[in-house]
Amino acid sequence: MTVSSRSLTPNSTLAAAQRAIDRCKLLACFTETPGKIERTFLSPPIRDCHREIAHWMHALGAEVKIDAAGNFRALYPGAALDSRRLLLGSHLDTVPDAGAYDGALGVMLAIALLEDLKGRKLPFAVEVVGFSEEEGVRFGVPFIGSRALTGTLDSDLLRRPDENGITVQQAIEHFGLNPNDIPAAVVANHALGYIEFHIEQGPVLETMNRPLAVVNAIVGQNRFELIFRGTANHAGTTPMNSRRDSLAGAAEWITAVERLGQSESGLVATVGSIHANPGATNVIAEETRVGLDVRHASDEVRIRAVEALLREAGLIAERRDLQVRWNERMNQRAVAMDPFLVSQIEQSIADAGCAPHQMASGAGHDAMILAQRIPAAMIFLRSPAGISHNPAEAVEIADVAKAIEVGVRLLDRLASSPELLGARISGERQS
Amino acid sequence: MTVSSRSLTPNSTLAAAQRAIDRCKLLACFTETPGKIERTFLSPPIRDCHREIAHWMHALGAEVKIDAAGNFRALYPGAALDSRRLLLGSHLDTVPDAGAYDGALGVMLAIALLEDLKGRKLPFAVEVVGFSEEEGVRFGVPFIGSRALTGTLDSDLLRRPDENGITVQQAIEHFGLNPNDIPAAVVANHALGYIEFHIEQGPVLETMNRPLAVVNAIVGQNRFELIFRGTANHAGTTPMNSRRDSLAGAAEWITAVERLGQSESGLVATVGSIHANPGATNVIAEETRVGLDVRHASDEVRIRAVEALLREAGLIAERRDLQVRWNERMNQRAVAMDPFLVSQIEQSIADAGCAPHQMASGAGHDAMILAQRIPAAMIFLRSPAGISHNPAEAVEIADVAKAIEVGVRLLDRLASSPELLGARISGERQS
Repeated sequence: MTVSSRSLTPNSTLAAAQRAIDRCKLLACFTETPGKIERTFLSPPIRDCHREIAHWMHALGAEVKIDAAGNFRALYPGAALDSRRLLLGSHLDTVPDAGAYDGALGVMLAIALLEDLKGRKLPFAVEVVGFSEEEGVRFGVPFIGSRALTGTLDSDLLRRPDENGITVQQAIEHFGLNPNDIPAAVVANHALGYIEFHIEQGPVLETMNRPLAVVNAIVGQNRFELIFRGTANHAGTTPMNSRRDSLAGAAEWITAVERLGQSESGLVATVGSIHANPGATNVIAEETRVGLDVRHASDEVRIRAVEALLREAGLIAERRDLQVRWNERMNQRAVAMDPFLVSQIEQSIADAGCAPHQMASGAGHDAMILAQRIPAAMIFLRSPAGISHNPAEAVEIADVAKAIEVGVRLLDRLASSPELLGARISGERQS
Repeated sequence: MTVSSRSLTPNSTLAAAQRAIDRCKLLACFTETPGKIERTFLSPPIRDCHREIAHWMHALGAEVKIDAAGNFRALYPGAALDSRRLLLGSHLDTVPDAGAYDGALGVMLAIALLEDLKGRKLPFAVEVVGFSEEEGVRFGVPFIGSRALTGTLDSDLLRRPDENGITVQQAIEHFGLNPNDIPAAVVANHALGYIEFHIEQGPVLETMNRPLAVVNAIVGQNRFELIFRGTANHAGTTPMNSRRDSLAGAAEWITAVERLGQSESGLVATVGSIHANPGATNVIAEETRVGLDVRHASDEVRIRAVEALLREAGLIAERRDLQVRWNERMNQRAVAMDPFLVSQIEQSIADAGCAPHQMASGAGHDAMILAQRIPAAMIFLRSPAGISHNPAEAVEIADVAKAIEVGVRLLDRLASSPELLGARISGERQS
């Protein structure tokens, strides 16, 4: 039996896919809200998840621990005692009323790949990580788990309270962990890299009729609040040419936002929130507030788009004798995935008989945080109907099987890769 | 001294104007909310207003009563015992945080015109009416006072509760009136007519630099709620061409509403309320609800505009793969003012040295209700900056003086009018 084809029979990958899906459904039973899936940072059902996953990892001979930020971490040793680590994983927390696959599937696929090794050791150790917090639900700030691995979980964040006044630090203590140990959670910066499987949470792969994509970047993002201000007046007694209608101005601008978003490939520009005051049917709106969200894999394209939209808002306001001002709510640069890992994943997808597709992730992921410290990349699985953050979230078993096949081929590629085992293990590549 | 110029010296009309303004300011002291002007239906300050106005009317030899719907009514007798009545007046209630002139000024001007007669009798009686309720604040339904005069204050409306659960009927009883007497409040349908002075509450006269206008119609009005429905999706992971964005669709339609409103003289079309769900900056809006208000003096123009806007909503929804539905919230026909009274007012304005201007009222007024039963017309006074329903509401003393001059000339015209004193008093014109 050759290494590269060691167990890739259609039946065995299908069975492994079914097992990964079943495990996601099992973890979905662990919830804060009966009848719905909800697991926020270090809530009781997170402990249930840890216990179940620990069973599966112990069976593989892995060493399991929960780090001081509540991340599940299991080390499957490499062939040599001092083997450096490749990290595989995703997050175990969820949004309220979540689906079963967002996050959990990435951890289950990491386990599936190790199970496929059937005890064989790779030239590197594999650490499976189940991040404690990615969604930002409990504390309004995402990535608490992955921030611990990159040494960026700062004391400000530790003091942040949830809506019951319990701080991140207290939540850690209540779970039986010691916040003083957080520095020990940091991943060595000579780690080989971090690879995350995740559902796409969008319609791109379904539209293209492809099961998988390699993520080459996490988009940069701006959020703004814009406030258009005119004059409240009687909708019956104020002629059209005497109006300073903030809502009409905002509406004109929203159509410009959509038009600009459509004008450039990969750009998304969204107004999802709007509030008009006084907000009565028979009163011209004095003030209209809108929320803008702009994302693109290229910071240059994104910044150019934002500048154009703010300029357009100014022109619309000027022409309509309105005032407009804005507040920046978020300004996050794009994060490139590691080109070597991206190319290895792309080739593994091709090896598995799929047309390789590169795409940017429009949402943030733990890989974006890990990329600050170690090489990182992601593999997206098709999301049926693009649905996520919703109980109707789903995956196709054939796509999960294909993801496992690609993962097995990827580990084989990396195991025989001089680029990885030479340059990286020698420590030349450090961030 | 001839009748037509009996007391129209600049000084005397200015003094009368100052007195009318001062009386409005005095009535403004009677309020439910200290520091603000607020008088809702049969609230305690309404009684204070009645007392003050009764003083002024008693001094004129008028017979004063409060009818069973709480309307102030004072009869200044005519030259003959059986003289038919001309009604002059406006409303005494206000919106919350009102100005001093909306409504009250019309009653004060009626008194000023009778004071100008200096005891002389006209060939018709003049009844000064201070309507108890026009704004619709306390019970959510306007025109309770004028409905009583037209016999349309029905039992459904009498049972309607305010926000404290007190019905219209109970409010009448608590004020010391007997709801069983409401039928006696109905005005004889052979009354000569109803004439109401009112501030314009809009910018038209100020823009035209004219003090007064005659109102030839109260516009018809439609209100609709439209609901655009798409799909909620992630603002980062959903490409622009895969979206069903209800807010973008609604915005496109709002710009069409404004454009159509601007396309026809006298038409106003407004979207003043909007709600997007779920309403998060990073989520494409699944559902957007907007309120539409369309008005025009011609029902045909209004209905054509509404049909065009609903058709446009359907086309926008179809092109964007959205659903759209609507609920009609109001459908009120235009009400023409009496052509004879309008012509008499117009000539009186010209006699007073002003360029006569006819305009439609974009807001509803008691005259609209009275017109169902007797001839009715209105005279608008310029509203500085178009401001009303606001403590900054104002009038120019010169405009008030001009209104008094026009009113004096109008009473003289009517007093010598064979059309009025012949055809109408003979009872030929009944509704």
